[in-house]
This record gives sequence, structure tokens and C-alpha cells, in this order.
Amino acid sequence: MSGNTIGTIFSVTTWGESHGKAIGAIVDGCPPNIALTEADIQRELDRRRPGRGVAGSPRREEDRVEILSGTFEGKTAGTPISLIIHNTDAASGDYAEIRDLFRPGHGDITYQKKYGIRDHRGGGRASGRETAARVAAGAVARKILDRAGIDIVACTRELGGIRAEGEAQNQIENNTLFCPDDEAARKMKTRIEEARAAGDSLGGIVEILVRGCPAGLGEPVFDKIDADLAKALMGIGTVKGVEIGAGFEAARMSGSVCNDPITPNGFATNNAGGILAGITSGGEIVIRAACKPIASIGREQETVDIHGKAATISVGGRHDVCVIPRIIPVCEAMVAITLADHLLRQTVNRE
Amino acid sequence: MSGNTIGTIFSVTTWGESHGKAIGAIVDGCPPNIALTEADIQRELDRRRPGRGVAGSPRREEDRVEILSGTFEGKTAGTPISLIIHNTDAASGDYAEIRDLFRPGHGDITYQKKYGIRDHRGGGRASGRETAARVAAGAVARKILDRAGIDIVACTRELGGIRAEGEAQNQIENNTLFCPDDEAARKMKTRIEEARAAGDSLGGIVEILVRGCPAGLGEPVFDKIDADLAKALMGIGTVKGVEIGAGFEAARMSGSVCNDPITPNGFATNNAGGILAGITSGGEIVIRAACKPIASIGREQETVDIHGKAATISVGGRHDVCVIPRIIPVCEAMVAITLADHLLRQTVNRE
Amino acid sequence: MSGNTIGTIFSVTTWGESHGKAIGAIVDGCPPNIALTEADIQRELDRRRPGRGVAGSPRREEDRVEILSGTFEGKTAGTPISLIIHNTDAASGDYAEIRDLFRPGHGDITYQKKYGIRDHRGGGRASGRETAARVAAGAVARKILDRAGIDIVACTRELGGIRAEGEAQNQIENNTLFCPDDEAARKMKTRIEEARAAGDSLGGIVEILVRGCPAGLGEPVFDKIDADLAKALMGIGTVKGVEIGAGFEAARMSGSVCNDPITPNGFATNNAGGILAGITSGGEIVIRAACKPIASIGREQETVDIHGKAATISVGGRHDVCVIPRIIPVCEAMVAITLADHLLRQTVNRE
Amino acid sequence: MSGNTIGTIFSVTTWGESHGKAIGAIVDGCPPNIALTEADIQRELDRRRPGRGVAGSPRREEDRVEILSGTFEGKTAGTPISLIIHNTDAASGDYAEIRDLFRPGHGDITYQKKYGIRDHRGGGRASGRETAARVAAGAVARKILDRAGIDIVACTRELGGIRAEGEAQNQIENNTLFCPDDEAARKMKTRIEEARAAGDSLGGIVEILVRGCPAGLGEPVFDKIDADLAKALMGIGTVKGVEIGAGFEAARMSGSVCNDPITPNGFATNNAGGILAGITSGGEIVIRAACKPIASIGREQETVDIHGKAATISVGGRHDVCVIPRIIPVCEAMVAITLADHLLRQTVNRE
Repeated sequence: MSGNTIGTIFSVTTWGESHGKAIGAIVDGCPPNIALTEADIQRELDRRRPGRGVAGSPRREEDRVEILSGTFEGKTAGTPISLIIHNTDAASGDYAEIRDLFRPGHGDITYQKKYGIRDHRGGGRASGRETAARVAAGAVARKILDRAGIDIVACTRELGGIRAEGEAQNQIENNTLFCPDDEAARKMKTRIEEARAAGDSLGGIVEILVRGCPAGLGEPVFDKIDADLAKALMGIGTVKGVEIGAGFEAARMSGSVCNDPITPNGFATNNAGGILAGITSGGEIVIRAACKPIASIGREQETVDIHGKAATISVGGRHDVCVIPRIIPVCEAMVAITLADHLLRQTVNRE
Repeated sequence: MSGNTIGTIFSVTTWGESHGKAIGAIVDGCPPNIALTEADIQRELDRRRPGRGVAGSPRREEDRVEILSGTFEGKTAGTPISLIIHNTDAASGDYAEIRDLFRPGHGDITYQKKYGIRDHRGGGRASGRETAARVAAGAVARKILDRAGIDIVACTRELGGIRAEGEAQNQIENNTLFCPDDEAARKMKTRIEEARAAGDSLGGIVEILVRGCPAGLGEPVFDKIDADLAKALMGIGTVKGVEIGAGFEAARMSGSVCNDPITPNGFATNNAGGILAGITSGGEIVIRAACKPIASIGREQETVDIHGKAATISVGGRHDVCVIPRIIPVCEAMVAITLADHLLRQTVNRE
Repeated sequence: MSGNTIGTIFSVTTWGESHGKAIGAIVDGCPPNIALTEADIQRELDRRRPGRGVAGSPRREEDRVEILSGTFEGKTAGTPISLIIHNTDAASGDYAEIRDLFRPGHGDITYQKKYGIRDHRGGGRASGRETAARVAAGAVARKILDRAGIDIVACTRELGGIRAEGEAQNQIENNTLFCPDDEAARKMKTRIEEARAAGDSLGGIVEILVRGCPAGLGEPVFDKIDADLAKALMGIGTVKGVEIGAGFEAARMSGSVCNDPITPNGFATNNAGGILAGITSGGEIVIRAACKPIASIGREQETVDIHGKAATISVGGRHDVCVIPRIIPVCEAMVAITLADHLLRQTVNRE
Repeated sequence: MSGNTIGTIFSVTTWGESHGKAIGAIVDGCPPNIALTEADIQRELDRRRPGRGVAGSPRREEDRVEILSGTFEGKTAGTPISLIIHNTDAASGDYAEIRDLFRPGHGDITYQKKYGIRDHRGGGRASGRETAARVAAGAVARKILDRAGIDIVACTRELGGIRAEGEAQNQIENNTLFCPDDEAARKMKTRIEEARAAGDSLGGIVEILVRGCPAGLGEPVFDKIDADLAKALMGIGTVKGVEIGAGFEAARMSGSVCNDPITPNGFATNNAGGILAGITSGGEIVIRAACKPIASIGREQETVDIHGKAATISVGGRHDVCVIPRIIPVCEAMVAITLADHLLRQTVNRE
């Protein structure tokens, strides 16, 4: 109930502060007899590594995952899978000077008000570092989805106001921005360099595409698949909006345009984004998540200290300029966790 | 786990099909000793009554709520509150001809694929009628919020592509569209009449504003208050997108613009929409939900029957042209239920 | 979280006070396409009717169940099944004089301390009447178990200190005590008449036998099948002890006696009661529940009023002398609900 | 839903196999600002160390606990507390010869049937070793109970058929059996030596006493405090029966004897064991748990191999003769976890 767990049958609990000894995840409810090794998980973790591309910080996180339990001779055993990632490069010293200041756009002030205590070093649980545990757990979810032929791919749809064209599945990993549009990717990189030079940061829009998902996933009324996907994505610190299919544009369509005609060969259009009445229709699932710019910036900002006194702050340390591309594998992981859970939930109706 | 329950401490379970004997809600976890009468609930239900305004259908739903349990001598007793609304005006006959057809944009096809059985009359659980039970439950949630000084008001921010200006709290109930902008309301009504004449339907955007919410509500990591609000709203059948504060626009801002400066008198701007790192900051909470156009339209559409054969369909019956304004009290109810739950969840940290 | 719901996939929520308008249950998570009618449920309800046998009170509860939702054309639809039983014979007047007194052995004092408010009429939620809703829900659970060939039968193993011999499956329903031993049943009836004459009450032990249960049900570590059965039975107001297989006697055995030898034809003995390490073994499940004597007695007892002042009380009204046999179908229902849930939970491992 | 988590607000998830790299627990929902160090937890762990007394095995488990997250500067931070205990003395080799055999009285056969895969080394999750993680989590629960003045003490009430007299709070830790009766303790030790010599094992009964618990804890209907305590204790592998207050004896009492008279100074007797209608009454809570003899014995037993063929087995390795006294701190931990959860759950009614 404390919000550190997501999922019902397939559930993921993350723990750990950004500057504590380690972070980790408990993946529970994974069916037995699925091949799973540390390499399967490490592959996903490596995709979110900082410093990977232009938008990253020079901070070097090794992020070596270790499986502590739940597998036996290379297969899942049906028991809880405990994953741990030790924190090896957490420089607490960098944060000493902001101990008593609230960073604008950060959870510093709200954590303090909620708990009356907070780990000020790097954001604690609110840090982006916590998402490494999600990516690790998502790698386990993907093994379940693989078995069912479900594929998830996310791309950069927009960055710093620059829009990318092209289908998500055409994202080109070697342009380092997971961007399906090489021309746009070049402009985005320029935009990132400008922001870095200005001591500023950028946001963007991630689009997630799911192919091969069977019809029937999602539970009416409150646990609609789109409701759970929205929660999963909005549960990423940086996300301020989520839309499915035509999303906000659907609000401007007439019914005769928005309704996807049904044909013997499937849906003629996909404004629904693969979901009808909260249940997957068998079509491609399309989701977009709006990411705000990174809150930690070098430019001076107005704030208060923990006593409520006016102050200014310039956040040093090693920060990314844009949460994209690092957020891409995190979005994929959250979608994977949600779908794996609903896939297992649907087993009860197939008896 | 079947998705008919929302909330952890304050939980709401709805039941009932649109054309069954009745619908209802169990509200569990409501603290004791709160004054609660059927009139408190009826008031909210009356706000979502069809035929109330221009966008409505002529269908006359009485929607009389009855409290069957959980109160004693006019006060909540701490035990589950069972609310029932009998279905008095459900004309099943209207639906006989679409028994074997899937309506485009509807859950007909996905329910059939999920369960292998469905109540085809009016959509069963996927019907908008189910939301009456949510409004009833939301009225109980509001009693808890009232006690804490938390106020929720929703307005029509956009309808059929027409945008309304003005603050949500200035919504004028007597323009029947909960629209804060009289001029826009007039245009919206014209737009609705045009759509009705064309056998078509419209969508829109609802904006929900929460005032008086204390700081500290919301649970990291997965049960962030914005994650739970997104789930609650996306769990309404018609909603295809949810955003908080600046929402999708935040993706286009730089950090120095997006970050709300903190001053001794509060936040200087509100791009965060009153939520930082998934926890309420004490500022106004601003949420927008994108509603697609109503799926049931008189115009002929392409579809298939339950055997997969091509067919056409023109949905008769008494349908609204636009889900707005009826969705407004539903959005408010979902926000109220979510906040009441998080308000009670936070009690554990205040010991 | 308020304790009115049990089960994870197959879940049951009960609501209603003994002297309110109605009581009921929401059965959620029942798979679709199972034949279910009101008659299926009524049959079980009729077995717990008061006044049925010698131990009963003259109170005449009709207990007509109505299915309000969740079935379509005689089959479950996968949606929540709402069951209601109206209270037709609740004589609130009988309770006026004990409004300000706490009945010894009752929940009067603890409900008051917990909530600061209580429905004093007949015990509210703590009344045995609430168990009618459980029996109704249990009838739905039994339909799921029937499909899997799982059979549950409970008998009176002991009553007022008189022990019955014979196997539970030989319980003779027409001796009105569900007692497998006719000779013991006669003595029990005499004992009941003596207690009634003395204005006193009796307790007893119920034994529940489950046959046909497949191996593999139960979840380590905390949701062991015996842990969940213990919770389900201890959650009946009258139950003060639960044991599995050899139970408390196992504590006095040596390992070489207690361990059930495994043979190619199954287990040679059944001290484990069909459960090993919290998982069903495929053998017969044997459970016993100790029921305390009914708390409401005519004999004068020492108590206090709501102001803490010493008083005496003699509880009038129409009360049973012994919770047996009425508790028998309730025990069966709680076991049925628990097993149905675990049967569905195990589906995830069988993919 | 996989049964590795217990509790609602205060929740504990354990992970790890007996012969894997480590075991651990995630304690979530612990309120912030409670002083907590590794020493607080180590103290409890040391009480369950094997080889501590006569009943133990010579196996030397160091059981050093490490806090990986959730505290900041010596206080709980409101975030999940991750506890880890590395397995340093797990001799897998000992188990090679029973890889294909099912040990009578063990979960070998049921795990295999449930999952189709099992970690045969020492029982995996079914091992008593898993309970170390519970004791660690229970130490955190105790910090919450301490703050409320709630004290838990367990004693050996019976061992190998020998009954101890005296109150639980008088248990003498230095007799190594947590036995309140020195004379009985001496006989028990002799009985243990006899069993060890015979290659056999013993069971016993643990009694847990809770003092200082406020009235009002426990949730009707299904989450009665006694129901949750029964589940918590029956969820320990060795426990086959649980009773509250007079327990099974209550079934033989008449109502006039069993009902505890209420006086201005409290209850005159305590047959209810401090719980009425599933809610604590303010009196002492008394619980007993029946523990079967340890299943692993040196004496030859009849069994089958994983192909169903008849075989004999004599379990070597380093096993305890009796689960008492090691189970004592585990019982205390399970009661502590349950009470801490219900204490926090009750906060919502005290607003």
C-alpha cells in the first residue's frame, strides 16, 4: 500500500535510494520454468546507461545486476526473484550544499512535507536511478511476453519541440536517441547541445508500440488496460501526460471519423490505439508519454530553504540534459510489466 | 483483481450491467461518524442525469440511490456502505437487432473475445450507465474531502474542437455544459446540434481543478498521486488521454521555464499542476482528460458480425451526442475517490 | 483493506448489518460461462436456515437470495455477481433495552471502542446473520469447484463435549445436526434441550473434509493453503481454534509417527491433512474448527454500560442455543471460497 | 498474490532459497522517523540461531543482517526497508543424494507438483531458513509496537508431550527452551536427547502472550485480528493448529462459563483471549500454535522417487530435533508483523 509495488499476479516491488548501498527489485508471480539469466537482464540495463548518448551526463554507472533468488539451474522456479544492483558511483559529497535547499521541479519539498525526513542526496527514491530497478524487472516481464509473441518497442517522437516522423519500430538504436527519423535526430542533438551550453534542459515525447498482443487483456471497470498503462507510465517521475491511440486529438474528432471501422481483416484504422473499452482488441497498441524537462539545471533558480526563507540555487553535479533517451527503456519496462501482469490475469478466463 | 474495485484504504467496488436489474457500489473503508444521507448522494447523481442539457439523449433515467448498509442514525458506521440504483428505464428491446453485430468504437468485440460471452444490451459493464455508481461513491468520498477542506470542480475545457477560456472554478452550471466561458458554450451548443443532425457525435476535454489539498498526498514510487489520478480517469471508458499541469506542453518547455520557482509564499507558477515527484505540493491540482466522441452514432458504419462476416450498422436507440457534460461529475467523482484514498493513506505518516 | 473482502482472484465482499434493510455479497473474479441460477444459491442458504433443527431459534428468516448482476442468460458473464438478501424479519424493538449495555462475549464493546459508534441492534456486522452472505457466495465458489471435481462436506465432530465418531462424508443431514454418528446425535440433542432449559448455550467442533482436490494449490510463503483456510475459518465470529490433519495432536507425536509415508499409491496415513508445506498434496484435506458457545444467553451476567458502570444483563430475543448446526454450511462456504481462489491462482503456473 | 507478502499497510515480503546466495525481506509501509539500526534487528536474529540450545543442530548460521535501504541517519525514512542476510554456510553437497527423492513430511513433493521444478537443496523456500527473514522483519514491527507500548512474549507451553506450567512472561531465556517452568524444561531436554539418540524428532506447542495492546485493532469481517493472527502463524511451515484464548476448550464450555464477565475494572476472566468479534478488547491476547515434529529424521522412512517408484530414505545432514525453541522468535515475529499492520490500519478510524 506504500506504492512501491505494481502488479497483481505479476508484481514488482522496487527498493533503494539513489545514494544508498544498493537498489533492487523483487519480481513475484513469474511463472516457473522460464529460462532467465543475469545476461537477459543486463542487456536491458545497458540500454539505459548514462553517458550512452549526447543527452547523457558523464556519470558512469556500471549497473551490474545480480539475481539473488528465484531461479534454479537457469530457469525461474516460481518463487520470488530478487534482483540487486549495487551503487558504486554515488558521490554523496556533491549534494552537501543543497542539503537544506529545495530544488525547483524536484520532490525535495514534497518528500519533506510527506515524511518529515528525506534523503537529500540525489533525490533518494525520487531519483531517476530507481528506474534501473524497473528496467531490470521489465526484462523478466519481457521473457513472459516473448513466450506469447508480444513485442514492445519505444521511440523518441518529439524532443525539445522537434518532432520525428516514421514508425516506432523503425527507431534506429545507433542514432543513440531511439529516434525513427534520422533527420530529426540530428536536429534534436543540436538542440541538446544548445540547452547544455545554456545550463538548461529539455523534455520530449516517447511513443511506445506493442505488436502481437492478443485480444482480451484488460479488466473492466477500473483496471482497464489503458488505465493501468497510464498509471504505469505516469508513475515515472518525469511523465506529465499519457495518451492512447489518437489521444488528445480524439477529443477533436467526430464519431464517424474516430470509430475504427471493423472489417473481416481487422480494424481499418487505429484511432483506438489497440484498446476498446479497456480491453486489447488484437490490434497494435500505441501509447505516448509526455516527459517534462529535467529539473536539475545549472541556471540559477528561485527557491526557499527548509525554513521557508527565500534563496537561489544552481544545481551542479552530473546531470543529463534530457531524460530522453534514457527514459525509453524505462517506458518499455513499465509497459512490459503491465502487459505481463494482464496476460497472466487473463488466464483465469481461458480455463 | 477483476478490476471492479479501486482504492486501497478507501475502496469502491461497482457492480451491475446497464440493462440488468440494478447497478450499485460498495464503498468500504470510509471512516466512522461522518454524516451521510441519501440526499447527499442524490445531489451528485442528479448532476449527471441524461437529458439534462442539449448534449443529452431523451432517455429518462431516474437514478434513485438507496443506502442499504453502513450508516446508523445518519452517520457512517465504519462498515461497508452498500449503494443501489435500480434500473427502471432499460429498454432491452432496442438492442435485439445488434445482438450479433459489433458496434465500432465499442467494447462489444473485446468483451466477446475476453469472456466468450457478453451482455449485448447497451454495453453491459462497458456502458456509461456504470458511471452512475461511481458518482454515487464519489459523493461519499467528497464527504471525507469536505472534512479536510478539499474542493473539486471540473469544467468543459474543449468540446468539438471549440476551446473555452476562463478558470474551472468559474464554470457556470446553468449553461448546462459546465463551461467557464459563456461565449464558447454557445458555440459548443451549435456544434452539438449540427452533429446531432448529421447522425454523428463529438468529443471534448474536461479540466479538473482541486483546491485546498494539503501537501504530502501520494505514495512513491508506483502509486504517485498523478499515476493514480491518471488511472482513475483513464478508467472512464471515454477517456483517451490524461495530463497534469502543463502536461504535453511541458514536453516542449525548457527546464528553466517549466520548473515552478519556489517562494516564501508558495510556487510562482503551476506547470507542475500541484504535484512534484508524485506527491501533492499544497498547490492547486490541475488535470485534463481527453474524451473521444461517443461511439454510438446513427450514421452507417462498416463492421463485422460475431462470425466475422462483413456488415454495416447504424446504431439507433437513445444516445447522447457528446459525453460532455455528463462525464463532468464522473471525472469529479474519480478524482474525489482517488484523493480520499490518498488522504487516508497519509494518516499513517502523521502518527 | 477494511476486512470485508476475502480472496485475491476469486474475491468475496460482504456488506450489511443484521437489522438493516438487506445484506449481500459481491462475488468478483468468477470465470465466465459457468451455469448459475438463484436456485443454486438458495439451496445452500436453506441449509443454514434457523429453526431448522433442535438447536435453532424460533426466528423465521426467509433468506431469499436475488442475483442482481453478473449473469447473462443463466451463465456467469465474468463480471461481478451481486447477491442480495433482504431483511424481512428483523425485530429491532427487541434490542432497545440493550442499547446502552455491552453483552458479555459479544462484539458490542469492541465495536464501540473501534469506531466510536455501533449499530446495537442484533450485533450489526458481527451478527451471525452476515454469514448468510458468505453462504450465498460460497454457493458460487462451489460451482467452480464442481467443475474441477472438488467436493466439500462438513460434519459435527463434537457438541457440548459429546464426541461423534464416523467419517465426515457419512454425516446424515436428516438428523438435523450434520452428525455422522446417530447415537452421538441423540445425546447432543438431549444436551441442547438441557442447555435451553437452563438459559445457557453450547459450543462444539466442526470437521470439514475436502475430497478430489488436486495437488499444487497454495502459495508459499504466507498464503499457504492451510494459512488461508485458518484465516477463512477463524474469520467466523464463533471460531476460536483451527487445526489441520492431526492438528494439536501432531505436537505430541514423534517425527517417525507423524510423517505420512509416501507410497506409489499415495500417502499411507494422513496426519498432514492433505497439505505439505502449505500446498495441497492430492490427499483428502481435513480441517477442524472449534466453536465457542453462543454468547447471547438468558441467564443473568455481569457487565457494564457504555459509561463503564456495573450492570447485569439477561439477553432475551430469539437466539439459538448452539451455533451448530447452522455454522456447518458457513464453514463449508469459507472453505469453498478459499479453495476456489487458490484453484484459480494456480492457473498461472499451468501455462 | 504469490503469497510471499503479508500485511496491508505494514507489509513484509520475503525472498530467497535456503541454499541460494542470500535471503531477505522488504519491509514496506513502516512510518518514518523511527530509530532503527542493524543492531536492533541482529538482536532478534541471534535469538533464533541454531545450536543455541539442546534441540539445535550443529549447523552454524551466522545470520548477519544488513539494511540496504529505507533508513537515513539512523531513522526510518518512510521508504521500503530492504534487509539482506547472506547465506554463508549452505552445504549444497549434503543434498545431492536426495535430489530425486521426496522426503516424507516435507514440501518436496508438493513443490514439484505445483511448479514442475524445485530447488531440492534443503527445501528452498519451504526451508526453516526462510523464517530468518521474518524474524528480521518482525524486529522492525516491534519498533512500531514499542512506540505504542505493546509487548509480545512467547514461551514453550508443551514439548514432546511434556506440559509447562506458569505464565508466558515468566519464560526463562537462559533455560534455552523459552520455557516458563524449569522443572518441565529439564524433562523436555531429556526427551530431546532420547529422540536424538533414536534418530527421531519432536513437536510442541508455543504460547504467545501480548500485553499492552489497545482495544479496537482488527477489521471485521474477514480480517478479524484473530483470523489474521491464525493466518500469520499457520503460515509457518511447522504449525498445524492455532487457537485463541480458551481455544478448543471453549468448544466444551457452556456460554455462562465461557463468556468473560465485564466489570468496571475490565474482564473478570480471559476465555476470549483478548479478542471479541475479531477486535482487540484491551485485555491480554493469548494464542497457542501447535508445531508438528521436524520432518527430517535419520530413521529410515518409506517414500517414492520423482518417477513414483518406491524407495526408502534416511535424511542425513544437520537437522534440529525439535523446532522449539528456534520457532519461538518466529512466532513472536509473525504476531508482531500482524499487530503492527493492524495498529496502522486502525489510524484511519481515529481521525
